[in-house]
Amino acid sequence: MKWPVTTPKDCPMLDPLPVASSARTSQKIAAFQSELTRRGLDAFIVPRFDAHQGEYIAPHDQRLHFLTGFSGSAGMAIVTHGGIAMFVDGRYSVQVQNECTGPLFTYHHLFETPPDTHVAEGRAGVKIGFDPMLIPPAWYDRFLQACAKSGAEMLPQTNNPVNVIWADQPAAPTGKISSFPLQFSGCKTQDKLAALSAELRTHEAQWHVETQPDNIAWLLNIRGSDVAFNPIANSFLLAHVDGAVQWFVAPEKLDEAVRDSLPDCVSLWPDAAFLPTLSQQVRSGQTAMIDPDFSPIAVRLALAGVAAQVIQRPSVLTRQKAQKNATEIEGMRACHLEDGVAWTEFSAWLLTTVPMRATSGAPLTEREAEQKMRAFRAAQPGFLDDSFNPISAAGRNAAMCHYATDPDNAVPVLPGHPYLLDSGGQYETGTTDATRSFSFGLRPTGYDRAYTAVFKAFHALATLRFPKGTQGHHIDAICRRPLWDLGLDYDHGTGHGVGHRLSVHEHPQRIGKAHNPVDLMPGMVLSIEPGHYVAQHYGIRIENLFVVVEAEDGFYEFQNLTWAPIQTEMLLLDDLSPAERQWLASYHAALIKQIGPRLSAPALAFVKALI
Amino acid sequence: MKWPVTTPKDCPMLDPLPVASSARTSQKIAAFQSELTRRGLDAFIVPRFDAHQGEYIAPHDQRLHFLTGFSGSAGMAIVTHGGIAMFVDGRYSVQVQNECTGPLFTYHHLFETPPDTHVAEGRAGVKIGFDPMLIPPAWYDRFLQACAKSGAEMLPQTNNPVNVIWADQPAAPTGKISSFPLQFSGCKTQDKLAALSAELRTHEAQWHVETQPDNIAWLLNIRGSDVAFNPIANSFLLAHVDGAVQWFVAPEKLDEAVRDSLPDCVSLWPDAAFLPTLSQQVRSGQTAMIDPDFSPIAVRLALAGVAAQVIQRPSVLTRQKAQKNATEIEGMRACHLEDGVAWTEFSAWLLTTVPMRATSGAPLTEREAEQKMRAFRAAQPGFLDDSFNPISAAGRNAAMCHYATDPDNAVPVLPGHPYLLDSGGQYETGTTDATRSFSFGLRPTGYDRAYTAVFKAFHALATLRFPKGTQGHHIDAICRRPLWDLGLDYDHGTGHGVGHRLSVHEHPQRIGKAHNPVDLMPGMVLSIEPGHYVAQHYGIRIENLFVVVEAEDGFYEFQNLTWAPIQTEMLLLDDLSPAERQWLASYHAALIKQIGPRLSAPALAFVKALI
Repeated sequence: MKWPVTTPKDCPMLDPLPVASSARTSQKIAAFQSELTRRGLDAFIVPRFDAHQGEYIAPHDQRLHFLTGFSGSAGMAIVTHGGIAMFVDGRYSVQVQNECTGPLFTYHHLFETPPDTHVAEGRAGVKIGFDPMLIPPAWYDRFLQACAKSGAEMLPQTNNPVNVIWADQPAAPTGKISSFPLQFSGCKTQDKLAALSAELRTHEAQWHVETQPDNIAWLLNIRGSDVAFNPIANSFLLAHVDGAVQWFVAPEKLDEAVRDSLPDCVSLWPDAAFLPTLSQQVRSGQTAMIDPDFSPIAVRLALAGVAAQVIQRPSVLTRQKAQKNATEIEGMRACHLEDGVAWTEFSAWLLTTVPMRATSGAPLTEREAEQKMRAFRAAQPGFLDDSFNPISAAGRNAAMCHYATDPDNAVPVLPGHPYLLDSGGQYETGTTDATRSFSFGLRPTGYDRAYTAVFKAFHALATLRFPKGTQGHHIDAICRRPLWDLGLDYDHGTGHGVGHRLSVHEHPQRIGKAHNPVDLMPGMVLSIEPGHYVAQHYGIRIENLFVVVEAEDGFYEFQNLTWAPIQTEMLLLDDLSPAERQWLASYHAALIKQIGPRLSAPALAFVKALI
Repeated sequence: MKWPVTTPKDCPMLDPLPVASSARTSQKIAAFQSELTRRGLDAFIVPRFDAHQGEYIAPHDQRLHFLTGFSGSAGMAIVTHGGIAMFVDGRYSVQVQNECTGPLFTYHHLFETPPDTHVAEGRAGVKIGFDPMLIPPAWYDRFLQACAKSGAEMLPQTNNPVNVIWADQPAAPTGKISSFPLQFSGCKTQDKLAALSAELRTHEAQWHVETQPDNIAWLLNIRGSDVAFNPIANSFLLAHVDGAVQWFVAPEKLDEAVRDSLPDCVSLWPDAAFLPTLSQQVRSGQTAMIDPDFSPIAVRLALAGVAAQVIQRPSVLTRQKAQKNATEIEGMRACHLEDGVAWTEFSAWLLTTVPMRATSGAPLTEREAEQKMRAFRAAQPGFLDDSFNPISAAGRNAAMCHYATDPDNAVPVLPGHPYLLDSGGQYETGTTDATRSFSFGLRPTGYDRAYTAVFKAFHALATLRFPKGTQGHHIDAICRRPLWDLGLDYDHGTGHGVGHRLSVHEHPQRIGKAHNPVDLMPGMVLSIEPGHYVAQHYGIRIENLFVVVEAEDGFYEFQNLTWAPIQTEMLLLDDLSPAERQWLASYHAALIKQIGPRLSAPALAFVKALI
């Protein structure tokens, strides 16, 4: 059924985020430059990374934000005595100019004119400082190559100069760690270690160095609480091929119960002992495996210092963790039932509430909507937390892929302005992430055509079968094709890996245009999330999670995990194939079968009314 | 319409190809080993390459075949005093064991256990000879790395030891060169040189070294006749940023008319002067651009010898040549009309002749069929030659993707055994390449299902629209999906670039699983050729050529060039979508519109009877 369409104009945009006054920034920069002078440095590299390369970092590690005011989730600055060169990707090219104002700043693209190019074009003899715990080997090697061209020099600084001038720097996090029981993890630490040792033997290596907290959490069957949304504990780990494990973790994070849950082969060390112990334990001529993209260069430098051999490969644990075992998959299925109840209740509630509140003169706000979704989740058994900062976006705000509501600025959700919610939960049994787009009657011109294409895109990939050896970049276009057919596209990836009660963005698996030489394997959990965005008008995205399973003929398939209704009133039914209509009907029938008995009467009625 | 199906058993397989007697091979190898001893070498690398890295090489350059008996189109041998290690890819793993027999030989996979790994695992101090005109830089660097590991040494041999022991080595080819008029090339050499110079300036380079004969033919608007099927002239070229070009080519290939056709900026030199001139002209500190994959390492070594800078990048000419200009595209369209007449006449003739000849007791043979196709082509205006060795394969022979008929062994084409023809022509105006599969009533079980899926695969990619920046490996799965849906696949690429009256396999564009970081651009000509193969039973492939064109909305599309009927009696019509049926009907209607008036009555009637 086609609706009359129009483009509403009355959906207010957010004001720009409050930014640090440039006067205060100048003072900080001046203090920082004095510190560099004191150290005899001409420049210093300030990445957004912490020592663990995570997407979410603790307030203690927000050095880039403290120094420059830039609040994005990725970026790098090179501070010299002349000013600050900011390097950010396309997502943040506008934001960086709003947040980092004043004549001190220049702006650059993180990938097209990256910081190492900047160094390569610099003067000879320049002394560039960096914190070796915050720069991974892959970046370090790029900087070294750049220095070889320009004649600059890289000088590691063990005492980060940002910390020195940051008077009120928050303490490093000491979030409590809990053990993650076998009923949820499905595999003992000892068995995971046996697989790790086998892999070390294959590479004739004696040591595995692990600095990614989600890998450590998975290996040790623990969960932490150091950063928002991701139940990880910042820590380091050194595993020997014979099975002995040294875990470097702040002692105050652990209680007796967690200590008791660890197998005997795991010994505990304060986190500060990590690098010294590494240098002491690993002998000259021995071989250690490190991850060149996710470990600090300090690790490789320490290994070089004792003349050890280094194998740089993506962490073995990253790959082992990605292929979920049967218990983990069962947990993912279970938490998606809870999550499905929340999504279905929310959907029915939203579609009733938005017109009602609009009529009342006190319209629902984006923030109320995301809070209501959290409340529906919180009512489910096993719910722990959101799995990321939700994107609750009305009207043209939904065209900004990384939008976040502003507590100080209430944006209404109004009929005529389709709404988008991208949100997920951490449950005892696993992690969820889904996106739905909602309409309340009138819609902008072109919305239905695009919504129909986004659904077709989602359906195209969700129903794909593929042979062993297929990688994410091979199948990305399968999803985009229905949009391409109309001359449309979306400027983000198609799917990301998802952890099991861990990070909602988990590598190495990924679906996108970029080359990603990782075979999609059974047990991997991925999102499928095509969208379409028209700046200043609207944004659409449909996202479910899927687990890769092997079919009887040896081909692989995506098995659906997410149970959230897909609103059908925006679909141009004439443009759907019989297979697409059938899939929708089956999906909603399956949803009712899975969670129908737990739904409220209005929510159940809402799903039943969908095609 | 569905046919009763059965699996016929009476289609004879070819006997193995006659192979060189192992006694004679042993003698050659012994002589070769003596020559190595005389030079103080422990080993010698014999690639299948000539100095120009082409797919087709002159008899003069068949060194690998002469020495080992291996006749495949790609491979490498490392000859030591102990024996010969043969390295071939999956296509030739069976063939190499048939052709290279005896205890001297060991067999290895060219990519999985490549020759450089072999060298890396060898003894220290081993002296490995190679001909620097036959090994490209990319391979040389791999061998150097391997030598660094094992402590072996690479020693260039300017006088190839295979030539020394090859008493009756054919002379190097001296095929006549003709000029290629502006009416077909559409662009003067001077204008192509201006674009080349602009590119050299961008890279701050003074010299471009070109060793690929098809690039030279394109740049100089000439065509040659040194190797089969590809109208190229083996030669070398040195272009200066100021526009002066030195062409190193055997003088006997040129007549007065060709000399006169060349612009004044092109000077002629004997081919033997190439390396000496390079060393003489390029000065220390100047920069030269070479192709690391397609030039001989001798070029880089000569440049290193005069302390020149080297930029290693795919040849600028390769990319310029790939994007055909309007005249070239017009030529490709024109020759495909000629070719379409030949294909349509052949199809109608074949479908009548096979049953008739089978009844007569003197069945048609594969070889007769390919000769008849050549005769239909030869009757077309502008036809010059085949563009490659055709694959004319009946029944289970069609399951071998690189099958060639054997003149001494007549294989019949019989009803019940679907037949496959992959064949193309060189015409004055361009180059063609197509594949069709034919059925004569009864077919093996499963054939129709697979044929229908292959058609759906072909249709899926042929109708794709895609944005700028899309690369071949992004869209390969679009083609495979209809096969994947049934648990089927094919073990070859989906499409290759095609030259304009040049090589039928032209890089850099390609559609396949392998990472190929080349944007598909308007003017590029590619094949789309999905297939399915059941060993010992049947093989199916449908192939057309397409040119990439830009649509009004800025998206790119494939525009069809090939006009050959697609037989429809093997299609499971119920499995086709309305769009697929419509495409087929439109395709045959367009064929009739394009070439109908030039078809014989039976051929026209045949096309009209297709859906």
